[in-house]
Amino acid sequence: MKYKTNDVIKVHAPGTVANLVCGFDILGLCLNEPNDLMEVKLLDEKKVIIHSADGYPLPSDPAQNTAGAPLIEMINELDGDTGFEVTIHKKIKPGSGIGSSAASAAGAVVAANHLLGNIYSNEDLVRFAMFGEKVATGVKHADNIAPCIYGGVTLIRSIFPLDIVAIPAPSLFVTVVHPQIEVKTKDARQILRKEVLLKDAIKQWGNIAGLVAGFMSNDLDLIGRSLEDVIIEPVRSILIPGFDEVKKRSKDAGALGGGISGSGPSLFMLSRDKTTADAVQTAMNDVYEKIGLDYHSYVTTINMEGVKVLEE
Amino acid sequence: MKYKTNDVIKVHAPGTVANLVCGFDILGLCLNEPNDLMEVKLLDEKKVIIHSADGYPLPSDPAQNTAGAPLIEMINELDGDTGFEVTIHKKIKPGSGIGSSAASAAGAVVAANHLLGNIYSNEDLVRFAMFGEKVATGVKHADNIAPCIYGGVTLIRSIFPLDIVAIPAPSLFVTVVHPQIEVKTKDARQILRKEVLLKDAIKQWGNIAGLVAGFMSNDLDLIGRSLEDVIIEPVRSILIPGFDEVKKRSKDAGALGGGISGSGPSLFMLSRDKTTADAVQTAMNDVYEKIGLDYHSYVTTINMEGVKVLEE
Repeated sequence: MKYKTNDVIKVHAPGTVANLVCGFDILGLCLNEPNDLMEVKLLDEKKVIIHSADGYPLPSDPAQNTAGAPLIEMINELDGDTGFEVTIHKKIKPGSGIGSSAASAAGAVVAANHLLGNIYSNEDLVRFAMFGEKVATGVKHADNIAPCIYGGVTLIRSIFPLDIVAIPAPSLFVTVVHPQIEVKTKDARQILRKEVLLKDAIKQWGNIAGLVAGFMSNDLDLIGRSLEDVIIEPVRSILIPGFDEVKKRSKDAGALGGGISGSGPSLFMLSRDKTTADAVQTAMNDVYEKIGLDYHSYVTTINMEGVKVLEE
Repeated sequence: MKYKTNDVIKVHAPGTVANLVCGFDILGLCLNEPNDLMEVKLLDEKKVIIHSADGYPLPSDPAQNTAGAPLIEMINELDGDTGFEVTIHKKIKPGSGIGSSAASAAGAVVAANHLLGNIYSNEDLVRFAMFGEKVATGVKHADNIAPCIYGGVTLIRSIFPLDIVAIPAPSLFVTVVHPQIEVKTKDARQILRKEVLLKDAIKQWGNIAGLVAGFMSNDLDLIGRSLEDVIIEPVRSILIPGFDEVKKRSKDAGALGGGISGSGPSLFMLSRDKTTADAVQTAMNDVYEKIGLDYHSYVTTINMEGVKVLEE
């Protein structure tokens, strides 16, 4: 085996955008920025240790930690005395809506797998990492985990049984704005109606099919037309000040489309080039300046690689 | 202009499979068999005349005929004295669930457009042809019309505004069985619930995304896994004797998957090769022999071309 006890590797675990407007619970996209930096050490004891490098109040009990819970599942499946010590430099703000908990979970399992000589498939890693999402949100979901591990755009066709499909997608620019308010994933889930109108569901699946077809055929206009959500967005956007204005101004600035990232509060917009993505950022900033709400915005691109093991 | 008054052309207008299991109201597929044969004559009078060549009791009032209504819309948009005389050799049995009304409507408008020197786009032709579906079912829908005109697999992302996307699909074999019972499209629509569970809708859009991705990436296993419908099929299949058995036996025989064609009663199954499609046909036949219900079954392929103008 390449690695021995006490060897340490570092990984970058990227932020992700879940749902992609019309693909609630089934689609996600990986971002090039921001990234958590994680150091993972191979131990010769069946235990998991978690450190927070920068004072974020992450749970130190590994079973309650989004990086720890997946690793506990992994070492319980392994024979013998293997464990991991993880140090997390949290760069992706928890609660921002761009997959902070998923990054910790995905980064931990990709790093651990690398130390073990890559014995697990990406689908196995998603299966482990979902235990982190269960700790974080109470629900095993993969729409941040899967793009974080696979990179690019991923479809979670089914959770039980797990069926993940990598969707080839063009290189697009992504503008993200994070208004500094708190939206709890649990709350954002609870306000959704348990039933939806069939006619709305039909519109939604037309858009999902259009979005997948647009990604796979590099049809940017089709992507733009399909980034429409008649079911989740009308409910959840109420929780996010400035939503309608951000969307309108971003599209006026040339964005293909976009909406709420995951359960928010971050909003994202896809653009065909950097110039447009920058103009979208200016428009977003302007909306929050006028409202007088603190915000953080940035322009990035789609990360085609997912969690990255850094040069050792 | 190539054609002059009283010139006649013939077209083959093919059968189609709407819905494709998980894509209710948005997906459709064109078949190579059966085809209506239609003769369309260019007139120098603003009128539409309809004949039935083989004694089918088709409405002779063009406004009430599925081929006539679209042509009335077309000549009302045209300047001057232009009309069409249509003779329909009805080979696709009305009420069989493989797009009989759509074939008449699509065949009529493609032929008329050809006589006019192809002045209309395919999307225009769908727009006209939907008036035929309105006559037939009371609703303007395009999930048979669009594949009949475009060929292959088509997505109707949206009806208002009309947005049709051709989905590249692999060459697959299609086995169809038509149990000789009557299922009225209106009844099949009325038994559907107006609301669906969000969790079911999520499963459905995962499958739709999977089906589109499977078609576009030539991933036959993914197509098979995605041909699952948790919303419409459980309700509508009750109207079709032998449904569960046909599905089970067909999959056992190697079919990728399938289900109700349109609103039924025909059932279809996709297979990767002719040998499998033949075995599926044998299995289907066996089910209806045992039930003691008259049926008609056949094996065909995906028609990539749509309505075809025959050598003149």
